[in-house]
Amino acid sequence: MKVLVTGAAGFIGSTLVDRLLDMGHTVVGVDNSSTGQAHFLKAASANPRFGLERGDILDKQLLVSCMPNVEQVFHMAANADVRFGPDHPTRDLEQNAQGTATVLEAMRICGVPAIAFASTGSVYGEATIIPTPEDHPFPVQTSLYGASKVFAEGQISAYAEAFGIRAHIFRFVSILGERYTHGHVLDFYQQLVEHPEKLRVLGNGKQRKSYLHVQDCIAAIMTAIERSREKVNIFNLGTDEYCEVNDSIGWICAELGCSPRIEYTGGERGWVGDNPFIFLNTTRIRDLGWRPQFTIREAVLKTVRYLREEIHLINRD
Amino acid sequence: MKVLVTGAAGFIGSTLVDRLLDMGHTVVGVDNSSTGQAHFLKAASANPRFGLERGDILDKQLLVSCMPNVEQVFHMAANADVRFGPDHPTRDLEQNAQGTATVLEAMRICGVPAIAFASTGSVYGEATIIPTPEDHPFPVQTSLYGASKVFAEGQISAYAEAFGIRAHIFRFVSILGERYTHGHVLDFYQQLVEHPEKLRVLGNGKQRKSYLHVQDCIAAIMTAIERSREKVNIFNLGTDEYCEVNDSIGWICAELGCSPRIEYTGGERGWVGDNPFIFLNTTRIRDLGWRPQFTIREAVLKTVRYLREEIHLINRD
Repeated sequence: MKVLVTGAAGFIGSTLVDRLLDMGHTVVGVDNSSTGQAHFLKAASANPRFGLERGDILDKQLLVSCMPNVEQVFHMAANADVRFGPDHPTRDLEQNAQGTATVLEAMRICGVPAIAFASTGSVYGEATIIPTPEDHPFPVQTSLYGASKVFAEGQISAYAEAFGIRAHIFRFVSILGERYTHGHVLDFYQQLVEHPEKLRVLGNGKQRKSYLHVQDCIAAIMTAIERSREKVNIFNLGTDEYCEVNDSIGWICAELGCSPRIEYTGGERGWVGDNPFIFLNTTRIRDLGWRPQFTIREAVLKTVRYLREEIHLINRD
Repeated sequence: MKVLVTGAAGFIGSTLVDRLLDMGHTVVGVDNSSTGQAHFLKAASANPRFGLERGDILDKQLLVSCMPNVEQVFHMAANADVRFGPDHPTRDLEQNAQGTATVLEAMRICGVPAIAFASTGSVYGEATIIPTPEDHPFPVQTSLYGASKVFAEGQISAYAEAFGIRAHIFRFVSILGERYTHGHVLDFYQQLVEHPEKLRVLGNGKQRKSYLHVQDCIAAIMTAIERSREKVNIFNLGTDEYCEVNDSIGWICAELGCSPRIEYTGGERGWVGDNPFIFLNTTRIRDLGWRPQFTIREAVLKTVRYLREEIHLINRD
């Protein structure tokens, strides 16, 4: 079938494009090159079943022009930086909230029947139940990023209610693996390459986080779309484990063969809105038969190895 | 103290302005006249402690110019129509989501320390627990209106987390009483004045809804602000009862002395995204000592009597 992927040149989006092409689908990608990387789509671009539209998801006409005969949208485009700053108070509003509104309106106009959406475990704020299930008590948001993703989820389910669009909403933990372009592994890797003798760590290093390898993430998305056919289908995606930031530091340093002096900035949170403990209950997706192939440690190591080989290719303007 | 009220010329906003002036506060009102009514502020405007800025909450400069020395914002401005239509897909996004973002940014710039926000029981979508408590399981949204209010709540709590702003968030049932300008009582009243022999009712008339009189609503807001001092304070506001639409029809017809033939459009829902059963658990606000003074029936009758006397004054362009 013909599918559309927003954020197609991004870390997860481009990996998804490759998988969809492998499955035999015809894929239209949309990407505004804000964080996407053209070389992530090198293999895809050689495939006659792939086309890329360079442009923004806020451009409704562009989306409408891409959507005829599309049967499934994968909406992966977003501002993906959870950190909050008064220097960009409207970034989440524009890219996540308005962006999703525009994608949905284009889908309605073109009669596209299904959307899969990359949401986030950050929608739980500081969860009171850990591991956190999808039906956790109505959470209080702690970041504009999480708030904007809750809104996008709500826009999608309102369209599902009003127009019969089928929705799959995925609340990710942090995703690792090949084509990873931002987050703590990159931060630590860059620091250690520049000065292997010291490492600056936001918070106290005891933040507990959960991670998932990108291939496991995409396998879970495909499993859910195939096997879960409600009007609105919501799934946590993550591994059945968590680690401390300090664990991750140990794995990265061992892989790089360095023993830095660690400087903690202190406090339970690395930044305003940081969540000191993220661990999602993934019973719902496991009940469909999905299992992750990689542990968190393996996902961290594969990410470090990818950065060693490819970081020179990543454009981080 | 000096306070600012957005949506100051609206039904709830103007009633709140009067109460705040009675309490001795200095009040700056902001209203864009979209649904607000100038004559609602007639008494307030005669008070030297009141000033009105005509303009939109999307105008950050206007808000910033109003905020010096303001100690409490009451953010009541919103698109308040829960009904969803493809003819206005961005109305909730602009007026509720972007509007709240702008109010919060102005507050941050000016160092305003507290916000009270008019949210809605619609944030629970179709609740699975009734009466619905504030910590109901993470709901699936059924309307863009509800989704936009969830986002606004999340923006507010993210600012509370990041900047130490104190937040009071009130999830209202439908509000009735003097200065009521839209909703089912007005719709029925207008129909019956025009043709007392028939009444067209959206849905099957068996939708169960809860209502609260505007004076009780404002008393609850004041009680919560005074007695609840957490960083983020969330309260359902409603009576401890509900009624069927058919009950309300009976009260209205008895008051107007008519016996119309009733034509139901049919179905459990009056419109897409309508919730067939709204009844909130208000234990949290009752635990602070607040009690409503009016039953739903009394609130409906007071609304009908208001419309009889004043409907000619309401500008419904």
